[in-house]
Amino acid sequence: MDRFTKLASQIDEFARARRWDDLHDPKSLTLALVGEVGEVAEVLQWLTPEEQIHLRDASSIHRQPLREELADVLIYLIELAAHVEIDLLDAAESKLLLNARKHPVPVAPPDPSAQ
Amino acid sequence: MDRFTKLASQIDEFARARRWDDLHDPKSLTLALVGEVGEVAEVLQWLTPEEQIHLRDASSIHRQPLREELADVLIYLIELAAHVEIDLLDAAESKLLLNARKHPVPVAPPDPSAQ
Amino acid sequence: MDRFTKLASQIDEFARARRWDDLHDPKSLTLALVGEVGEVAEVLQWLTPEEQIHLRDASSIHRQPLREELADVLIYLIELAAHVEIDLLDAAESKLLLNARKHPVPVAPPDPSAQ
Amino acid sequence: MDRFTKLASQIDEFARARRWDDLHDPKSLTLALVGEVGEVAEVLQWLTPEEQIHLRDASSIHRQPLREELADVLIYLIELAAHVEIDLLDAAESKLLLNARKHPVPVAPPDPSAQ
Repeated sequence: MDRFTKLASQIDEFARARRWDDLHDPKSLTLALVGEVGEVAEVLQWLTPEEQIHLRDASSIHRQPLREELADVLIYLIELAAHVEIDLLDAAESKLLLNARKHPVPVAPPDPSAQ
Repeated sequence: MDRFTKLASQIDEFARARRWDDLHDPKSLTLALVGEVGEVAEVLQWLTPEEQIHLRDASSIHRQPLREELADVLIYLIELAAHVEIDLLDAAESKLLLNARKHPVPVAPPDPSAQ
Repeated sequence: MDRFTKLASQIDEFARARRWDDLHDPKSLTLALVGEVGEVAEVLQWLTPEEQIHLRDASSIHRQPLREELADVLIYLIELAAHVEIDLLDAAESKLLLNARKHPVPVAPPDPSAQ
Repeated sequence: MDRFTKLASQIDEFARARRWDDLHDPKSLTLALVGEVGEVAEVLQWLTPEEQIHLRDASSIHRQPLREELADVLIYLIELAAHVEIDLLDAAESKLLLNARKHPVPVAPPDPSAQ
């Protein structure tokens, strides 16, 4: 089993063991996802450009909080996708192919604002 | 290379080939993530409880739009984590262990509202 | 001066007195808005349908937290609009007229999912 | 009646006339709010610092889209507050007093990152 699938199955077990999945429905899980994205935003909101670059260094005091909030976003995203029985990796692989057709690599200088 | 790592590297190549990464910084990528979470919310917002359950069926007209928006959330989450050089799977695995210590499996009836 | 304008001017004074406006730019203020919307989501995410209805009662333990988070959303929305010099009430009045033209009141049974 | 109260009552009438309020509950309205905040984020996400400053000028091509999305955020925020019978202006006025006590104006150089 690859790491992502193993993680997804651990997340599923975690919620079931605590019967938290009793409260799970698509809208509630999306609100939980929104809550975690909000916490990512709170870590970043007042950072200066220098502090944003410094996030890559282990010495940044914002790095560990950001790491935990990004983890929470992924965890709820996996829970939401599992709940509606959508394979997240399949979905992202398909979407990337679609994006590649929609936005071919330009020969002329590319337009970053088209993303 | 596992599927997730391969996907992450394809996402990285995709942005570089189009020079979109020129515009990437943590705040902008977080806003892009917020935009995609907003599109997930728009797919779900007016669904009835029945329509929410029906999302699991291939016949739901909301399933493919939801699949594409969940994919976009994962893609931008991966781009943001890569930009700040945080390993998303590592981060989620650590967070899950932390959550397990913080919320031990209850012996008595569990409390779903503690999640 | 009407109440909304007075509130907006108090919010402006509040940020200036603390020199918080030094850090204000459109992206950062939007992230702050996202953070507060995330806190609204966290108040609501695991509420049952009964608890959601009960939010209207003074006895709901979720009512005061929701009230404070909705206030924070309005405060950052006002700060963001002020920062880019957009009159929020004007904008909402215009948008409502636009919406009314786009979605005329139906003669036949209306379609709530069109909103 | 002040402008804000009048706007709130027009928004209420608008939804009732179309029977859209039949689908309104706190979670769904929050998801709608999230969708609109996501659209604000999409307007701003790839703007350069210069383009962000230029948002104040009538000649910015991003100004009118931003104006409409900020309006939509306010409209759904008003609908959500009305649905749970919370007076949004009262709530914001109280929160501002609370914030003022929590963050007194500093005598020494203030700390913008405390906001």
